[in-house]
Amino acid sequence: MSLAKRDLISINDLSDGEIEAIFDVADSLEEPLRRRQARDICPDRIMATLFFEPSTRTRLSFESAMHRLGGSVISMADANSSSVAKGETIADTVRVVQHYADIIVIRNPLDGSARLAGAFAEVPVINAGDGAHEHPTQTLCDLYTIRKELGSIAGKSVALCGDLRYGRTVHSLAFALARFGARITCVAPPGLEMPDHVRHRLIRHYDCRPAEFTSLDQVVTDREVIYHLQVPNHQAAEMLTGDELVPVWDLMSLFDVIYLTRVQKERFRSHAEYEAAAGSYQIKRAMLDKAKKDALIMHPLPRVDELDYRIDRDRRAAYFRQAGNGVPIRMALTALLTGAVRTPAGVAPPPPRPAPERLPPDLVCVNERCVTRNQPYVAPRFLSVGGEATRVQCAYCDAELPRPEGALHPLEAELTEKG
Amino acid sequence: MSLAKRDLISINDLSDGEIEAIFDVADSLEEPLRRRQARDICPDRIMATLFFEPSTRTRLSFESAMHRLGGSVISMADANSSSVAKGETIADTVRVVQHYADIIVIRNPLDGSARLAGAFAEVPVINAGDGAHEHPTQTLCDLYTIRKELGSIAGKSVALCGDLRYGRTVHSLAFALARFGARITCVAPPGLEMPDHVRHRLIRHYDCRPAEFTSLDQVVTDREVIYHLQVPNHQAAEMLTGDELVPVWDLMSLFDVIYLTRVQKERFRSHAEYEAAAGSYQIKRAMLDKAKKDALIMHPLPRVDELDYRIDRDRRAAYFRQAGNGVPIRMALTALLTGAVRTPAGVAPPPPRPAPERLPPDLVCVNERCVTRNQPYVAPRFLSVGGEATRVQCAYCDAELPRPEGALHPLEAELTEKG
Amino acid sequence: MSLAKRDLISINDLSDGEIEAIFDVADSLEEPLRRRQARDICPDRIMATLFFEPSTRTRLSFESAMHRLGGSVISMADANSSSVAKGETIADTVRVVQHYADIIVIRNPLDGSARLAGAFAEVPVINAGDGAHEHPTQTLCDLYTIRKELGSIAGKSVALCGDLRYGRTVHSLAFALARFGARITCVAPPGLEMPDHVRHRLIRHYDCRPAEFTSLDQVVTDREVIYHLQVPNHQAAEMLTGDELVPVWDLMSLFDVIYLTRVQKERFRSHAEYEAAAGSYQIKRAMLDKAKKDALIMHPLPRVDELDYRIDRDRRAAYFRQAGNGVPIRMALTALLTGAVRTPAGVAPPPPRPAPERLPPDLVCVNERCVTRNQPYVAPRFLSVGGEATRVQCAYCDAELPRPEGALHPLEAELTEKG
Repeated sequence: MSLAKRDLISINDLSDGEIEAIFDVADSLEEPLRRRQARDICPDRIMATLFFEPSTRTRLSFESAMHRLGGSVISMADANSSSVAKGETIADTVRVVQHYADIIVIRNPLDGSARLAGAFAEVPVINAGDGAHEHPTQTLCDLYTIRKELGSIAGKSVALCGDLRYGRTVHSLAFALARFGARITCVAPPGLEMPDHVRHRLIRHYDCRPAEFTSLDQVVTDREVIYHLQVPNHQAAEMLTGDELVPVWDLMSLFDVIYLTRVQKERFRSHAEYEAAAGSYQIKRAMLDKAKKDALIMHPLPRVDELDYRIDRDRRAAYFRQAGNGVPIRMALTALLTGAVRTPAGVAPPPPRPAPERLPPDLVCVNERCVTRNQPYVAPRFLSVGGEATRVQCAYCDAELPRPEGALHPLEAELTEKG
Repeated sequence: MSLAKRDLISINDLSDGEIEAIFDVADSLEEPLRRRQARDICPDRIMATLFFEPSTRTRLSFESAMHRLGGSVISMADANSSSVAKGETIADTVRVVQHYADIIVIRNPLDGSARLAGAFAEVPVINAGDGAHEHPTQTLCDLYTIRKELGSIAGKSVALCGDLRYGRTVHSLAFALARFGARITCVAPPGLEMPDHVRHRLIRHYDCRPAEFTSLDQVVTDREVIYHLQVPNHQAAEMLTGDELVPVWDLMSLFDVIYLTRVQKERFRSHAEYEAAAGSYQIKRAMLDKAKKDALIMHPLPRVDELDYRIDRDRRAAYFRQAGNGVPIRMALTALLTGAVRTPAGVAPPPPRPAPERLPPDLVCVNERCVTRNQPYVAPRFLSVGGEATRVQCAYCDAELPRPEGALHPLEAELTEKG
Repeated sequence: MSLAKRDLISINDLSDGEIEAIFDVADSLEEPLRRRQARDICPDRIMATLFFEPSTRTRLSFESAMHRLGGSVISMADANSSSVAKGETIADTVRVVQHYADIIVIRNPLDGSARLAGAFAEVPVINAGDGAHEHPTQTLCDLYTIRKELGSIAGKSVALCGDLRYGRTVHSLAFALARFGARITCVAPPGLEMPDHVRHRLIRHYDCRPAEFTSLDQVVTDREVIYHLQVPNHQAAEMLTGDELVPVWDLMSLFDVIYLTRVQKERFRSHAEYEAAAGSYQIKRAMLDKAKKDALIMHPLPRVDELDYRIDRDRRAAYFRQAGNGVPIRMALTALLTGAVRTPAGVAPPPPRPAPERLPPDLVCVNERCVTRNQPYVAPRFLSVGGEATRVQCAYCDAELPRPEGALHPLEAELTEKG
């Protein structure tokens, strides 16, 4: 199946092969000789960037990508200077804008809003961030940066550090890293740990159980090693086994990639707690001495004070290159989704999304920020969670909720109907 | 006379033949094969979009149109991020921007502001909405949609519904529909009826007397029919004559086009009044059962709750196609006004605008929102109202006011001078 | 040395020859025949316009220039709809955006911010206004307008009128006029005179001592003439010598160029003072009667009420043409800095900027609006002021401050080290 005319709402809308195909196209577009030729790829296409939330980097990198492909851009950079101020729904906005553009890039603060936009637009829709839900092109840039700089993703040891609870990008990234076989360690201050639904999904789908620490400058002692070893298939435990096992080990030395996220002060109850948690999400220059010589320090940017400015000149500081990779990735994606570049033959599509379940029509999503609860005229829909009889998930924001009493799992229902 | 280098401030700046020429160019640009070729029409032209008021759809559709013609766009999407915040006048803004662009598209909240802009700019100016005055490209899109979907405008029965008092688009549309021979019915809640000056102009210029109702779900009875029949040349009455005359008739069944406008809650004194008036401006799914099979439901968008979302999939719901028609119409207009596409030979121009009258220099426009009363250094000018000795109209916002005592009509003055 | 890959932060970053080269390229781009060809100059380049402060004219003229060169533009028109709202530093912003664009145009309210941006970006950076510091492309437009309309700058008599204290553009312009041999007269109301550091620099670098008056409609009497004659090398005095010397002379008649600046009411303690000072910065129609027949009235725009609207149609009113010259100047600059057009051979570069001095690391800039005092992680740097042992200047905002006690001038230090 071709990528042409498809939406990209979640990183899971892409198969592994499709992600590799995007990376290969991005590689080819980065060749200096291709620069002039790229302008012939999309000369007659228009991209609409609809940003209902502030952003510089994401919007400008999409627009730069489209211009480098020779195309044009129409842009709504600010919800306040738009019909949205008059109360228009997302569904209506995209049904109008699809007549003005060949591809729509949308950022909106509501979880699941991009899925809704994709459902209504007849042109491809790219999710450039829908609330706390997904930001798949950031994830593609992150994966691409690791692949480009370290040769591959599989087997690499990646620390995800900082606010793992509310960080939009980091959940998608965790799933994608697990898919591609990276080993994950989570480093988060108390209260900002990876949420349970992400842990569960990592285990359920990828058999991935990240080790967890509360601080990057934490020292791993014997006792913790033993604790970790008791957890089967525990990746940090694996890292600590073998010849290299030592009773005291500095965390920084373990990782191929140290991925920091922005931590918002507002998440903490007091400034004292914020300061106390600093070690978990701040990289200081001295800490780099303990890191691997070819480690990558990554960050989705903008940073606040997670990254000491004095490490910017260290070769391992990869975050500006990571931002730069946004252009070839978004060029490749735009070229493939608009059909201007053909998807290579033989690339397998992802498994189809399950069909919505027949559930009581008054069932509402549990997520208060879900688009179904904040836009009129959107009927909630729910999908079955693979293999689980007791839970369903929102078709828009992916929030999981208990299957309503009396509602059978589709397979059971089928059996019941037959029986 | 060619359309090249002309302004489009009011729909009356175009002759019938010119409007037809715009539609023909738009038709030709919609052919799929023309898509790539269109990019060669304006490759070296720049459009400036100057939006002093929020808008998504109008601005983006102009920008999309220019890009599809191969041109470039510079944009001021928000008055707050501009020199306007420093107090610059519209006249100065356009005299600067004309050096940066080959055509200027302007939206400004002051009535008559676009006429002022056109008077000062040496490049063509398109009015994209000047307060409560005109929005002629919306009118062109509306007419084009009816022509495209129903084959012609003449003889079609059109209901204009909702806020007919304050709705900017609907006054221009009424005049244009009358010009092209459509039959008009007005459906408005009490207090939001078509204003007298619009009725008068419809009668005076086009001999058009719309029937008037207060609600779309109203039933037309014998008595009303008789009442309407007593009014000579009354269009609704005509509709009710002939073989089809029945004693009780549902309004919905009468119309080829049902054109709804946005109704703002603030126009009503209470929520109860707002709710009570709902039937006059809301289309609910059940009402469609009574409508003609090939009727068009139109709306300038954005809608609030005038249109039931459940009719979106009905073929008669034309409002998204109507929005999409903005692109070919604005492409055609841009191509013709910049001279990139030649006006067909033999197309007659509109009658020339009357010359300003010599009136007392302290005469001010009666309209508080007129640009002459809200911008410094703009001398008010007044034109004679065709055939009327007692009234003049503002040359900018078209508001009519009594001719000052002692000021003679130009023809009388001429006679007096001769005599 | 080529202009390619260079920054333009201050007008002093350009040698006289380079400025002439820019003017020659601008001249060539204004030829009508070149219009279509210009689109082949930068077809594969992208300009980023990063505007952290409101602007229409500057941003749109840069964007128009880039489009006329065939290039593309990505734009951040409003700091509020950007990552800046999340607290990102200028250094980080440009290190990201340099991956998206081939040239960066930046406006930021902090003095010295553009120099900082240039230090971090690997692509050329153009200063489009950094607080009260510099606005070099405005200065280029001003000089170009004089040269184009009057044939040359050298020897022309230029009155700088209005707010000479806080006006950003006028300081740069004064230096540039002095460099090119114009004779300067300053006309400012009390309290808004040219600041001492500008006067000092004009004397020190260009041996230029402007005459000073408090009002344009002031009459020059014998006594003032005598006073001025007592000042050696005093330009206004020179103007008043020779055959033309008369006891009473109207100022307006003296000038080839009358350059007005915007005066903000907030600079005055009362409305009465503002009104009283009006004559110093307002040109009224009657005043033009006394001006030279081929004088130029210039203004950077937007004006408030410094310029009587009734003189707009006078040929001498050059301000809209001056704004229009922004396009060819910015086209030329963009083409030269991106390397798309080659710098002519044999054009001498400006003298190199002095190396930063080794001064106590806790020394801070005296300017409260300096970027070094308002952005984290920027180490202040100071340069020696040519030939002065007692003062140094901020490497970012050019503010001068006393050389710290015990800190030797580099030459002295060198001698001391040797000795």
